[in-house]
Amino acid sequence: MALARVQNFTVSLDGFATGEGQTLEAPFGHAGERLHTWMFATRWGRAMLGRTGGTGGVDDAFARLFTDGIGAEIMGAGKFGPPGWQEDPRWKGPWGPNPPFHTPVFVLTHHPRPSVEMEGGTTFHFIEASPAEALETAREAAGGQDVRIGGGPTMLRDFLAAGLVDHMHTVVVPVLLGRGVRLWDGLEGLEGDYEIEAVSSPGGVTHMTFTRAGV
Amino acid sequence: MALARVQNFTVSLDGFATGEGQTLEAPFGHAGERLHTWMFATRWGRAMLGRTGGTGGVDDAFARLFTDGIGAEIMGAGKFGPPGWQEDPRWKGPWGPNPPFHTPVFVLTHHPRPSVEMEGGTTFHFIEASPAEALETAREAAGGQDVRIGGGPTMLRDFLAAGLVDHMHTVVVPVLLGRGVRLWDGLEGLEGDYEIEAVSSPGGVTHMTFTRAGV
Repeated sequence: MALARVQNFTVSLDGFATGEGQTLEAPFGHAGERLHTWMFATRWGRAMLGRTGGTGGVDDAFARLFTDGIGAEIMGAGKFGPPGWQEDPRWKGPWGPNPPFHTPVFVLTHHPRPSVEMEGGTTFHFIEASPAEALETAREAAGGQDVRIGGGPTMLRDFLAAGLVDHMHTVVVPVLLGRGVRLWDGLEGLEGDYEIEAVSSPGGVTHMTFTRAGV
Repeated sequence: MALARVQNFTVSLDGFATGEGQTLEAPFGHAGERLHTWMFATRWGRAMLGRTGGTGGVDDAFARLFTDGIGAEIMGAGKFGPPGWQEDPRWKGPWGPNPPFHTPVFVLTHHPRPSVEMEGGTTFHFIEASPAEALETAREAAGGQDVRIGGGPTMLRDFLAAGLVDHMHTVVVPVLLGRGVRLWDGLEGLEGDYEIEAVSSPGGVTHMTFTRAGV
């Protein structure tokens, strides 16, 4: 069965997945790039930036699962752009002409607009839907492959609370952001639904995987 | 130089060090024993309960540092007993006649009372003091050994915010408590003061050590 998966979702030690004050220049707010340094130190992350080199260990192995076997993504409105992007009809996301998704991407929004086809296979669709409805739509578009639940934290929390996530890879970074949007709020007892593994990497982060029994 | 150290301080994945609803029967509230299962699975933890067996790996190695080289402890009022213990002049803590400290223990309280000598070398002293004053007092009692900052989370946060902790060992357990007392609140940027290491154990928890530069 095709899965709903979370990959490379990074949180600070105090549980924030994005900082305060998100803008176009600072999509993660005051967190800056601190949450994702681990990813851009890997061979996979450097290749995404058009560079060579990088680490080839456990951080890289996990990072590569981001695209592997994924046929569609669902993302929240806060990931597609800074507050107010809904007012700008020309806004196509912060990733440039060739976004790193290469599949259909369903953006959850209360302001649907026409789909936008980008280079490299990414097409943004804008839908107003419950988590379950969005997942059904994305599954149809994924052609039998898995659907990535792309975040941010608010939408991921909703999908977790609705029991819709089959497998989740989170990365805990030893940084205390102090403020921003928390991932873990309101999810008491979540561990009961999953087999959880943790592995710390020489790069200094801790990868945690949540695998639902039977998937 | 003798250090101010934190050992075996355990938090849930969502950052709670104690649950809601602390009582005599449930000193960690609704968290129950879930935060400390890792410790009582070790040889050291089982020996503390008068049992044999247990694991002898990384969890055990860290757990043993609890007493190693420690000459005194400072603890918050919330660790010494459930809410209201201050009204009970006979209350001597929840650990029975032979508490696991075996040193002077300074209990921070707004209601000082006479010291209580227990079996096994533990003496409880009750002081009203700032974190810095309490540490100075405990250092004098520690006879050149280290002082353990014993928690709970509220007092530990105060000691961290005051820059008084030289070395901290925390254990992150893959449980989502959802409610209780958080450790990490108000500590934005703490990582800048420490070298941080993380290691996940086969027992399923992640040990994190914070070592202040130069100590």
